[in-house]
This record gives sequence, C-alpha cells and structure tokens, in this order.
Amino acid sequence: MDYRRLDNEDLKHFASFLKESEIITNPEEREPYGHDETEDYQFSPDLVLKPSSAEAVAKIIKHCNDRRIPVYTSGARTGLSGGALPVYGGVVLSTERLNRIIEIDERNLQATVEPGVINQVFHEACKEKGLFYPPDPSSWGSCSLGGNLALNAGGPKAVKYGVTNAYVLDLEVALADGSLIRTGARVLKNSTGYNLTQLMVGSEGTLGVITKAVFRLIPYPQQDRLMLIPFQSAEKACEAVSAIFQAGITPSAMEFMERDAIDYTLQYVDDVSLPIGPEVQAHLLIEVDGNNAEVLMQDCMAIADIVENFEAGEVLFAESAQEKAALWKLRRKVGEAVKSHSIYKEEDTVVPRAELAKLLRAVKELGSRYGFHSVCYGHAGDGNLHVNILKNEMSDQAWKEDLPKGIRELFQIVKELGGTISGEHGIGYVQKDYMDVVFQEAELQIQRSIKKIFDPQEILNPGKLFPNQ
Amino acid sequence: MDYRRLDNEDLKHFASFLKESEIITNPEEREPYGHDETEDYQFSPDLVLKPSSAEAVAKIIKHCNDRRIPVYTSGARTGLSGGALPVYGGVVLSTERLNRIIEIDERNLQATVEPGVINQVFHEACKEKGLFYPPDPSSWGSCSLGGNLALNAGGPKAVKYGVTNAYVLDLEVALADGSLIRTGARVLKNSTGYNLTQLMVGSEGTLGVITKAVFRLIPYPQQDRLMLIPFQSAEKACEAVSAIFQAGITPSAMEFMERDAIDYTLQYVDDVSLPIGPEVQAHLLIEVDGNNAEVLMQDCMAIADIVENFEAGEVLFAESAQEKAALWKLRRKVGEAVKSHSIYKEEDTVVPRAELAKLLRAVKELGSRYGFHSVCYGHAGDGNLHVNILKNEMSDQAWKEDLPKGIRELFQIVKELGGTISGEHGIGYVQKDYMDVVFQEAELQIQRSIKKIFDPQEILNPGKLFPNQ
Repeated sequence: MDYRRLDNEDLKHFASFLKESEIITNPEEREPYGHDETEDYQFSPDLVLKPSSAEAVAKIIKHCNDRRIPVYTSGARTGLSGGALPVYGGVVLSTERLNRIIEIDERNLQATVEPGVINQVFHEACKEKGLFYPPDPSSWGSCSLGGNLALNAGGPKAVKYGVTNAYVLDLEVALADGSLIRTGARVLKNSTGYNLTQLMVGSEGTLGVITKAVFRLIPYPQQDRLMLIPFQSAEKACEAVSAIFQAGITPSAMEFMERDAIDYTLQYVDDVSLPIGPEVQAHLLIEVDGNNAEVLMQDCMAIADIVENFEAGEVLFAESAQEKAALWKLRRKVGEAVKSHSIYKEEDTVVPRAELAKLLRAVKELGSRYGFHSVCYGHAGDGNLHVNILKNEMSDQAWKEDLPKGIRELFQIVKELGGTISGEHGIGYVQKDYMDVVFQEAELQIQRSIKKIFDPQEILNPGKLFPNQ
Repeated sequence: MDYRRLDNEDLKHFASFLKESEIITNPEEREPYGHDETEDYQFSPDLVLKPSSAEAVAKIIKHCNDRRIPVYTSGARTGLSGGALPVYGGVVLSTERLNRIIEIDERNLQATVEPGVINQVFHEACKEKGLFYPPDPSSWGSCSLGGNLALNAGGPKAVKYGVTNAYVLDLEVALADGSLIRTGARVLKNSTGYNLTQLMVGSEGTLGVITKAVFRLIPYPQQDRLMLIPFQSAEKACEAVSAIFQAGITPSAMEFMERDAIDYTLQYVDDVSLPIGPEVQAHLLIEVDGNNAEVLMQDCMAIADIVENFEAGEVLFAESAQEKAALWKLRRKVGEAVKSHSIYKEEDTVVPRAELAKLLRAVKELGSRYGFHSVCYGHAGDGNLHVNILKNEMSDQAWKEDLPKGIRELFQIVKELGGTISGEHGIGYVQKDYMDVVFQEAELQIQRSIKKIFDPQEILNPGKLFPNQ
C-alpha cells in the first residue's frame, strides 16, 4: 500500500478542531495502541487521536481519506484477532472519549450509546432499570460496545439470547468521505431498503466508524440456576450438549471446558478452589434463567437426567451468589490463564452444535500429527469452540512454518462440518489469510467490492479481513 | 431503461435446459404472474419460467444479464408492496417448483429449504418434529419462504421471536453473472467477513435469486393462552401495549385492531361471531406461550391487571383450540376484509412501540385533513401499524394527486417518531418514491452502489426499491 506519512500540516489540521488532550504524539503514550490481546503483536501508530464527538470522528477520517493516511479505530483493545492493530502505522482513532450512555429509554426498552462505553458498564446501567443487554464476552469488564459491534461479539448468554447483532436497531456511522449516516431506525422490524445496519456489524472497522448505536433491550430475567457437570470424556460432554437442546431445553449458558482449561485457570486465579477427581476430562457449565424458580428447577433436573446418559459425574449446583460468581470467574479467566501458560494461538472455530465432538476429535488428531498441545473450551451450545494451541516444546520453525498448515487443515474440517473460521472473534489480522478456506473467489470479490464503495482509498483499517493484504 | 425484448433465440436458449412445462408462453397462463396482492396493479411478463434447480436459475439470469432482459423473481405473489410485479415486462422467474424441504436436521435444530416452500407447510413439517419456525405472516397459508426472505417478513409471533432474518443462517444465491454463492454457514454465530446473508434478506430480489436457505429452529412451545381485550379508546389500547412490556411481560403475540377492522372482518368471514358492545373502539389480541401452564396463567392475570388502567372491557379468554382458531382467523383475515370493502392503499408504518398512540392520532388527523377514512390494525407489540386508507367517497383526483402528499406527511411523522416506512411489507413498487423521506442521499447512494456490484446491468427486479426508477 502506498500511504502518505503524517506531517506537521496534518497535525495542525487535527489541532484546529481537537483539544490538546485529544492528540497523543508522545511515543510512550502511543505504545499501548500498538497491541491488543492477540498473541504477541506490537505495531506503532504515528499518532493517536481521541475525539469526543461524532463530528470530530468524521472530520478525522475525511482528512485521512483526502490525504491517504491509514485510520485504525481502536476500542478497548481486548480483541483476539488483531483487528485493531495499526499494521501500516498512521492514525489510531480511539473511541475511549466517546463513552456516554446517551439514553436508556424505559418506555421503549431501547438504549442509545456511544461506541466507547464498556460492555459491563452498559449491562449494569440497564440492569438497574430492570433491563437486560445480553451480549457478554468474557472480556466484558473491559471491552467496548464499539468493539463488540465491529466483531459481532458473543459471549455465554448468546446461546439463548443471540449475539450483538440481534440487539442493534440503528447505527450512526462516519464514512470515509466525512458524511455521517444512519443505517436503520429505532424499530424492532424494518423492511426498508438494504440492511446497512447488519452490513456494518461485524465489518471490523473496514467500512466506517460507528459513532452511535441504538440497542433493543429485554426485561432482565429474575432468576437463574448454575450447575457445573464433570465428564470422564470430553467427547461425551460435547455429545451431551446437543442432547440437552434436542430435549427442548434452551439454557442461558452452555459452556465447555477441557480438563486443562480448568486446571490452568485454578492455578491462575488464587481465590477459587474446586475439588476435581483424576478421572474428570471436561466440564460443562450450564445456566438456566427465567422468572419462575420451579420451572428452572425442572429444567435442571431434566438436564441432570440427560447428562447421566453421557457418563457425567456428580452435578455441582452453585448454591449462592458467591458460588455462582466463583464459577463464572473460573470460566471467564480461562483465556487469560491459558495465555499466561505458554505462547499460544487462539482459533475461534464454530460448527453446527451436534458436530462438536467431531471437531474436538479432529483438533486432537491434528495436534498429534503436527506436534502441538491444545486446550479447548468455549460456547458449546453455539458450537463455538475456542481452540488454544500452545507452543510449549514446539520448535520456532514448526510454530512458524508447519502450524499454519495445521490450522488450514483444521479450518477445512470446520468448513466440511458446515461451520466457519470465526464465531465471535473476527478475522482481523491473524485469520485473514485463511479466508479462502471458507469463501469462494466470487464471495470474496463481492466483499472487496463492498469495501471499495465505502472506502475507495483503503484507509479504513487496512491490512485486515481480506487475504493478501 | 433500455431493455432488450425477448425473441425466438432467447426461447430456444431456455428450451435447451428447461422442460417444456417449465416455459410458459401462453398469455392466459402468464396473466396471474402480472399481479400480486397489492392494490390494483396488473403488468404483463413476456415469459414465465419455472426452473426446478438452482443451476437452472443461475443459467436463466446469466442469459438475461448477457442480453439485458429484466428478470422478476416471483414467489407466491402475496406481496403488499408490488415487489414481484414485472413492471418492465421481460421474464418472470417463478420459484414454485423449487419447493422442497431438503432437510429438517433434528440433531442441530436446523432446516434447509428451497424458496418455493409455503410458509405454513414448512411450519407444520417442523412442528411435527417438535420444532418451531416462528415467522408467520398473515398470508402464511399461501406465501412462500423465498418471498418471506425477500421482504424480511414478520407476522404476529415476531414480537417475541423476531422476524425472518433472525432465523436465517445461510443462503445459496444465484447471481446475475451466473455464479452460485453461499452467504454464511450452518452456524448460530458467525464473525467471518461481511454479513452477506443479512444483506440478501430484505433486498427484494434486486441483488440475486435465493435458491436455498438454511434456517435455525427452536423447540416448539408446548402451551399457549389467547385473550381478546376490548377498549373504549383506540389510543388507550395503544398505550396499554407498552405498559405490558414495561411490566416485564413478553407476549408471543400482541395484535391491535380498530373497531372497523373487526366489524369488516366479522362481515367478511361467515363462520366467526363475536358480541361487541357499541362502546368498543378497539381490541388487543394477546397470546402468551411457553411450557408451563401456571406461568402462562400468571402472565395473563398480570396483563388483565395492567389493561384495567387503560379502561379495558371484559377480557375474553379463548377456552378451546376452536376458539383460538376463530380469533386468529379473525385477525388473519382483516387485510382481505378491508380490501374487499373498498379500493384502498395499505401503509406498513413502524415506530418505537411507545409512540403507537401518537402515530394513530396522526393518522386520524391526516385523514380528516385529506378526507380519507382509515382502518388501522397490526403488530402493536412491534410498533408496526398497518394503516389501510380507504377510497370510499374520495374523488379520483384527490386519490391520485392529494393522497400521495398525505402519505408523505404520514411518513415524515413516522420518521420523526423514530420509525420507518415499512416494518414487514417491503418497499417494492408502491413505496419506492417515499424512500427519500427516511434516507439521506448519501444513504441511498450507498444502496445504489451495492445494487450495482451485484447487478450492473440492472436486470434484477428493475423498477423497485429505489426512487425515480
């Protein structure tokens, strides 16, 4: 790519409409914007801008478009696919000051927010009013809603309530030409023109910069029950998952964790303990929610009956809010725990739910063939398995040269099972060269053409999503 | 538009890969393909083709693309926005022979269908296996799934379960260049590239022809309760709607009918009777569903308590399957009944739920100003009000020249209330010239550019969706 480097004229221009505190030139302060939670990448933006209005965002990208300077929109940098990495330098546009919850509309069960609002902050603000915003990625305490929108983020609740895109009604988006558009309306159904809202969600900052979002909300469920179920076989645990759904039960969370995932995490967090017998190979963490305690108890009993057919051990019910919090902490910290254990790569495979056991078997077979150790966990109810590949004793050469072939084989299997290569983490920087596994050239070409409409100068998050960039 | 007329060479080409019975040249047999359920339009296609494979569909549109012949994809022609009308003649591509339910996958709660399958046929096939496909437009007994996808159709259940697009996981689409693409995967969450699936849904046949769809399904709810509630004031009925949702109850249907809607329908269907006092101005038809009778009864009691605050009359509970069917028949037949009453126009306005009373007031005010009588009904829980404007005594001139100004005013009010001009019927032929009310030029331009990527020759459903076409 032939991008212009920033010069003093650019800085002067930005200073004409941004405050001094919104312009970060100091290398030390810029450094954190060069990485996210993805493996071990570090890039270096030339400049970080922190606009506090949609109009300022639009002015920034218009200028960069006119001058052909890359713009990398950055939320909280908790991403796992390198989507926010400034791989060609240029400007990082941080949304951290666009962090207002503009309105929680209790009459209509809707909310309007800016992209920099932290997921959990929004969740709690809604909950205070009896309203529920379900998408809850593991990083919800630190990830931003703008990032969630960019990647169509999920989380444990998605299995019952759907992922981010199921809650978005309307977006305000700054385009490369400096215009601000609305993509939808504040309505629950909309058959008016092409669905630009859903085109923006999951587009990873490559089409525009989301400056406002309108979400629908639902009533907050009043009760939940949480159970942890040990299995002697990880494959049996996977098989139990689809049996539960086939029985007509829809849990509000259905999480799978391999033995290593729990063990690493128990070592990593020091305030949770759990006695686990040596025979246990995996756990399911299952939550049901609703407004009626008796119905939930019936669901739990039905689940307990079903898992018996899959050689489950004794079901542990969380009896108090503390016990629930401890089990959820265990699940939410798996990613960090595995990461702290070794250099690793995280794959975000997703398949039809009933194919989960086949996928797990394939991962292990590939591991023995390519010589890697894997720790698998994830949102089993959605068929979404996070495959963590640990470097451990692998040689640098095998890690760099052979492993990508193994990952390609894994993705080919995922495709054959009816699945795809990312369920919620996005493609970003680290998965783009595998896009040809799941898309034909015609399908990629359409996506490239759409990109060109919105971003003819290729200044919006360049070096992402598409192969060979 | 400068389109080529069909000639014998074209017919010969189609005959080279279609059966004789798949090629309709006879004017009488072509005639039904020239209209749908929208008002009083009649156009005339030059040829009707009824391919029975995706490959044949692709060949047809490639040929039409090469020769610049318009292609109008036609489902069951139950549309209410003229979306399937062959306004420039050319070829009508009927999906009626693409009517296989290819698979109902009970392990994964998914189904794969062709576009010509009738909605209710699919619904019943799923139900037999204990599975639920919720989208249920009033025309479900005759409308096709392909048409539902083209318009992102809703129906009464949408208020709890979402519209068509909430159930689509993957589409096979024939493109103008003759390629067949897949837009997604058989998975419940997908962060892999731009969301071409959601771009296709609701695009009204202007981007490609859907040849297969993969839907997710959910467990069929085992019980429901249905209640009809009379109100002395239509506005009070509208206000009751949002009060019910604010109380944390999510009914599985929340339908509103003005007095005239019920009266016309009772005259139109001869096997349903209902005693209605002279003071009644509107009804809400409310259904709750789930798996626990006691919980449903509690919901019903809570609803009955809430509506008392809005001057409701005595709640009628449907006590048997027959009574439920009668009430649903009443609701589903309103459209036909109103249509049989007078020349009319149907608007498909949608606003945030709590603004429904304001919208209704505005409709009546416009009616008295422009001299039209209106009958309003619809999916109140979704804020989706079908405004039926009756010609009655209006002069032809007022109908043709003044009324469009009144509709424009109505749509401007809808926009100001945070809503939009179609909730489930689509834009098609009859609403296209109002698109500028809800979209800025930049927003329309993006949509036109997307259209151009998929259909550079403008052969796919030309004369629709965009203003000034």
